[in-house]
Amino acid sequence: MNNILDFETVELDSKSNELVIIDQTLLPGRIEILRLSEAKDIWDAIHELKVRGAPAIGVAAAMGLYILSCQIEASTFEEFYTEFVKARDYLDSSRPTAVNLHWALMRMDSVVKANMAKLPSEIIAALRKEALAIKEEDIAVCRAIGENGLTLIKDGYGILTHCNAGQLATCKYGTATAPIYLAHEKGLNIKVYADETRPLLQGARLTAFELSSAGIDVTLLCDNMSGSLMREGKVHAIFVGCDRVAANGDVANKIGTSMVATLARRYNIPFYVCAPTSTIDLNTPTGADIVIEQRSPDEVTTMWYRERMAPEGIGVYNPAFDVTDNDLITAIITEHGIARAPYSDSLKKCANKKPGQ
Amino acid sequence: MNNILDFETVELDSKSNELVIIDQTLLPGRIEILRLSEAKDIWDAIHELKVRGAPAIGVAAAMGLYILSCQIEASTFEEFYTEFVKARDYLDSSRPTAVNLHWALMRMDSVVKANMAKLPSEIIAALRKEALAIKEEDIAVCRAIGENGLTLIKDGYGILTHCNAGQLATCKYGTATAPIYLAHEKGLNIKVYADETRPLLQGARLTAFELSSAGIDVTLLCDNMSGSLMREGKVHAIFVGCDRVAANGDVANKIGTSMVATLARRYNIPFYVCAPTSTIDLNTPTGADIVIEQRSPDEVTTMWYRERMAPEGIGVYNPAFDVTDNDLITAIITEHGIARAPYSDSLKKCANKKPGQ
Repeated sequence: MNNILDFETVELDSKSNELVIIDQTLLPGRIEILRLSEAKDIWDAIHELKVRGAPAIGVAAAMGLYILSCQIEASTFEEFYTEFVKARDYLDSSRPTAVNLHWALMRMDSVVKANMAKLPSEIIAALRKEALAIKEEDIAVCRAIGENGLTLIKDGYGILTHCNAGQLATCKYGTATAPIYLAHEKGLNIKVYADETRPLLQGARLTAFELSSAGIDVTLLCDNMSGSLMREGKVHAIFVGCDRVAANGDVANKIGTSMVATLARRYNIPFYVCAPTSTIDLNTPTGADIVIEQRSPDEVTTMWYRERMAPEGIGVYNPAFDVTDNDLITAIITEHGIARAPYSDSLKKCANKKPGQ
Repeated sequence: MNNILDFETVELDSKSNELVIIDQTLLPGRIEILRLSEAKDIWDAIHELKVRGAPAIGVAAAMGLYILSCQIEASTFEEFYTEFVKARDYLDSSRPTAVNLHWALMRMDSVVKANMAKLPSEIIAALRKEALAIKEEDIAVCRAIGENGLTLIKDGYGILTHCNAGQLATCKYGTATAPIYLAHEKGLNIKVYADETRPLLQGARLTAFELSSAGIDVTLLCDNMSGSLMREGKVHAIFVGCDRVAANGDVANKIGTSMVATLARRYNIPFYVCAPTSTIDLNTPTGADIVIEQRSPDEVTTMWYRERMAPEGIGVYNPAFDVTDNDLITAIITEHGIARAPYSDSLKKCANKKPGQ
C-alpha cells in the first residue's frame, strides 16, 4: 500500500501551478491523485468532497485561488481585481457552510488589497506565499497538537479514535491522529483502534486507510464494539477531534463521540479531545447552545448498500454531531497546551495565547 | 405494508402438511412466504437463515420433522423409527450450534419412543401435537415476558431496543419486543427506537420492519446515536433480549448491548433484559465464564456494500456478543417474574419456578 504521508492531502505544484489532491471519494478502494488547474475542476473537487475537512478545504481553496490568479490577463489592477473577485466568489460557492473556506479566501483577498500598488507579478508572488503560509500554519498547529498529545501516550498503548480527524481532514498529521503519528515516528509501540463511524464510515474509509498506509497497526471495529474492547482492557487512551468547543468545555463532535466518552468513564480510560484553538468558541457558553444538524435518512438506510437495508418510509434519527459534556473529558489538547478542568479558565488561557508564548 | 403479525414467523399448515415461514433473508425488501414439505427445503431454510432465532428454529425443526414423519412408508415400527432418525439427524445437521434445534428434535424423538407400541397414525398424531405444543409453549413464554414487562411501561414512553429479540426470532411477540407489542395492543402511546445493530443490521432489517409492519411508531438510528437520543431525554426505558444469563446476573447478548447499558446508567434510564428462563444458566457463575465468538472481518468491511468500505487486509475486531455487567441491569424479566439485584438469589427463584406457580 502506498504511504499517503508521502504525498500529503493538499499540495501546490509550483512548477506546473497545479493543485494536487488525493481524491477522497475513491478511498479506500483507489488512490487517485488529481492535478487541477481549471476553475471548474477545483470547484468540483471541493463541492464533491474530493478534498474534505475544514482545514484541508481552506488550504485547497487558497491554493486554487492563487492558481486562478496566475491565469488572469489584465492590464490594470482594477481589471485584475475584478477577475480575482469573480474567482474568489466562485470558489467560495463550492461549499457555503465550510467556515475555513471563506476565511482562507478572504485572507487571500486581503493580500491582494495590501499589494494593490505593486506589479501584477508581485501580487501573484504574495498570493503564492499566503497560500503556502496557510498550509504551513495548519501543519504547525497539527504538529503542536501532536507534540502536546504525545506527552500523554506511553509505549504499548492501545489508542481508540472515532471518525476521521486525520491527515485527510487537514494538511498533515490531522488533529486526533497527530499524537498517533508522532508516537509512531518516535518508534513507540502502539495499537490503534478505529471506530467505523456510521453512517458515513469515515473511520473505516479514511482513518483506517491513512493510519494503515502509514504503517501504523490499526484495527477496525463497529461503533457498538468499543465498549467491549474497553472492557477487555485493550484501550489505554482515546483521542478524538472536535467541531466546536464551548466556553465551558462541552464539545460538539461527530455523532458517537459522547458515547465513547461515556464508555471511557465507565472503564476509567482517559478521553482526550484534540482541538485547534480556532475551534474554541468562547461566545458559546455551553453545549446546549450548539445547534446539531439532522441529516438525510438515506445515509442510514440506503447509502453504500447494494439494496435498501430498512423498511420503506421508516423514521430515522440521524444527527451529524453530538455534544460531550465537559465532565467526561479528561483534557482538551490545543496547539498552545493542554487544557484541563475547570475549562472555563483553562480554555481561555489556551485560546488567548499567541504562538511562541 | 403487510402486518407480519397476521402470518406469524413459523406455522404448520395442517391441511397440506407444510411448514409455512417468512423468508427472513429477503427482509425488509420483500415479504415472501415459503411453504415447505421436502426435507432438503426445510434443511436449507434453517441453514440459510430463512428462519432464524433459537426459539423459531426449534419450532420449525419440530414441525419439519413431523411433516417428514408423515411421508415415511414403513410396515413395522423399526422401519419407521430408522427413517425417523434419518430425518431427525438430517435436520439436526442444518445448524449444529443452535441449542433449541437439537432440543426440539430430541423432544420429538421422545414422543416416538413413548408411543412405539401404538399405531403409526397414532404416533404421527402425537408428533403433530408435540410440535404444536413446542410452539404454544414458546408463545406462552414470550407472552408472559410481555405481561411482566408491560408493568414497567407507562403511556408516552420512548423505548429503545437493540438487535432483534423480536417476533421474527420466536413464534410470536418476541422477548424484548413482547412488552412493546402488548403495550401497543393495550393502546398505550409509545415510541420505539431501534438501534440498527452493526454489522448484521438486525435492528434495521428485522426489528424496524416487524414493529412498523405491526403499526408501531418506530424510529431507526445508528448504534452510535443512542447516547445522543438518551441525552435529549427521549428514552424512558430500554428492553433488550439475551443469549445467556450467568448465575450472578451478568448477561451475554448481541454486541453493543453493554454499550447501551452503560449509556442508560449515565442518563438514569432503566435497562431491562428480557430472558426466557431457558437462557438462565446457573452453571455459569459470571460473565467472565462466557466465551465470546469472534466473527469474520467481511461482515464489517464488505457485507451488504456495493464495494469494500475499508482498506484491504485491515485488522477487524468483530465479536458477536458482549457481556453486560449485572450492576448496569435494572431488572431481568422472565416468564416467571421480574428478577432484581441481588441476582444470585432472584434468578434462582425465577429459574426454579414452574409455570403456574
